[in-house]
Amino acid sequence: MVAPTVKLNSGREMPLVGFGLWKVNNDTCADTVYNAIKTGYRLFDGACDYGNEVEAGQGVARAIKEGLVKREELFLVSKLWNSFHDGDRVKPICKKQLKDWGIDYFDLYIVHFPIALKYVDPSVRYPPGFFYEEGKVEFSKATLAETWKAMEELHDEGLAKSIGISNYNGALILDLFRYAKTMPATLQIEHHPYLTQQPLIQLCKDSDIAVTAYSSFGPQSFLELDMQKAKDTPLLFDHSTIKSVAEKHGKTPAQVLLRWATQRGIAVIPKSNNQNRLAQNLDVCSFDLSDSEIEQISGLNHGLRFNNPPDYGVPAPIFA
Amino acid sequence: MVAPTVKLNSGREMPLVGFGLWKVNNDTCADTVYNAIKTGYRLFDGACDYGNEVEAGQGVARAIKEGLVKREELFLVSKLWNSFHDGDRVKPICKKQLKDWGIDYFDLYIVHFPIALKYVDPSVRYPPGFFYEEGKVEFSKATLAETWKAMEELHDEGLAKSIGISNYNGALILDLFRYAKTMPATLQIEHHPYLTQQPLIQLCKDSDIAVTAYSSFGPQSFLELDMQKAKDTPLLFDHSTIKSVAEKHGKTPAQVLLRWATQRGIAVIPKSNNQNRLAQNLDVCSFDLSDSEIEQISGLNHGLRFNNPPDYGVPAPIFA
Repeated sequence: MVAPTVKLNSGREMPLVGFGLWKVNNDTCADTVYNAIKTGYRLFDGACDYGNEVEAGQGVARAIKEGLVKREELFLVSKLWNSFHDGDRVKPICKKQLKDWGIDYFDLYIVHFPIALKYVDPSVRYPPGFFYEEGKVEFSKATLAETWKAMEELHDEGLAKSIGISNYNGALILDLFRYAKTMPATLQIEHHPYLTQQPLIQLCKDSDIAVTAYSSFGPQSFLELDMQKAKDTPLLFDHSTIKSVAEKHGKTPAQVLLRWATQRGIAVIPKSNNQNRLAQNLDVCSFDLSDSEIEQISGLNHGLRFNNPPDYGVPAPIFA
Repeated sequence: MVAPTVKLNSGREMPLVGFGLWKVNNDTCADTVYNAIKTGYRLFDGACDYGNEVEAGQGVARAIKEGLVKREELFLVSKLWNSFHDGDRVKPICKKQLKDWGIDYFDLYIVHFPIALKYVDPSVRYPPGFFYEEGKVEFSKATLAETWKAMEELHDEGLAKSIGISNYNGALILDLFRYAKTMPATLQIEHHPYLTQQPLIQLCKDSDIAVTAYSSFGPQSFLELDMQKAKDTPLLFDHSTIKSVAEKHGKTPAQVLLRWATQRGIAVIPKSNNQNRLAQNLDVCSFDLSDSEIEQISGLNHGLRFNNPPDYGVPAPIFA
């Protein structure tokens, strides 16, 4: 089984369902990626910040070596971390990340956050995280325009076949339209029934930018981080609306949540350590929700955001 | 009676209570400004877009001529409209606005929206509004950085003693910190108990940017625009929480709403066509709410925004 694709404004095809590498442990990452490829996954969504690019690359290499896939059949995504926003830091770090993966281009390379932090040399600490020193955030003066220009150079040189953004809001995207020569191919955002972000998605639709959802299961992803807000929120898996739609279709709540996104053209990147669920998550374009089911699910929206830097002690209220 | 002031990062003092010129009719504007000065108002918050700067200037001139105030005792605010974001358009339009007012500097000049529209010559249409032609919005490629650089030049040349921003969100402000040589002295935002914007206000506080609230009475201001969302929302003047606090202090609900802001250091710019209320609105620093009253009022927050360009048919979701 292979997921359907969406055509990006860069001319490339991106699978609508991929595998997200956030919080995939280093010791299991290579096997997880390898097994996911075996199951049919072609898109892997990584990042410097996830700290597992070497292992992800090992999984990819094994799959290619065994002839399961060719490189060109895969869609490998990575992200520029905040500490590398200075124009002259972008290419060197992208090249390091490519080396970690053991590949010579990314299919998509994304600005992870609209937050510019002071450079940290990879020999000092990698991934650098949000804090320059214990509990201390240091900003860089690199503007988003400067960073995007460097991203465009990666694209021009073929190190990234498409370039994108993540965690940008509408006003930032409008400003990007003013300074960009190459438009972002994708926007990756937190997106689930508690945070539907319809106006932002509409802007992207109007502007031919594909949207990828992260944290499609809502609070679920943040329980692992021991986040109180997530603990205080009813799980979407247990929500009566989601459960009743799932029962009606003979699918799991997870499948319904993913289909609710993909049916509206939004790509998803769930993660699972369980082989069964891995397959189920990929099988989310084989059934259709009715319009009224989609509306019902969208009706759960109440602007509830879990991934918000100030909640991690980072004084960068990018969603304020 | 004269309102207390707040010291801006530009070194200038700004009154905490001013008079907002939005929706003040042309035929009454000069008298309204003159009477407001007589009542004790020193800050007037105008804008190109309000279409009444000539008349506001006439009111000011009469008050100065009659010796009620000196120019240096006034704090005159105006705003750069969206159609003048191109770097080379900023100074000419600011000079035109100064001429309309009949003054040679603004105390504060503000970027009205983080939206850059195609230039409209004042001889063609003034104020230009959001629509280039009937129902059609045309954008400019001027980045916010380009516009801000031109604003800094106004400041350097003394045409604006302080410069500020309006309707910017947290992420835009963080990017501005990266490209700005002169920090904005103020941020003007929609702010009332239904939209408290605490994280954004905290960012400004941490960054020594004064905050000015507009639409302090919430839905009230938007009833005049016949806005359905405003009609569907319980008026803050009628809200039991506001009313009971008002009764306890022997003040009007309007005074409580303004005090709730000023007591937290947020400047306000109410408008009134009624002489009695004009005086009442200025008298909002002579009583104090208790911490628990402030919290109670802040507890009404549910992120309800009335001034949102997409709601006016403008495809610029700056708050998405």
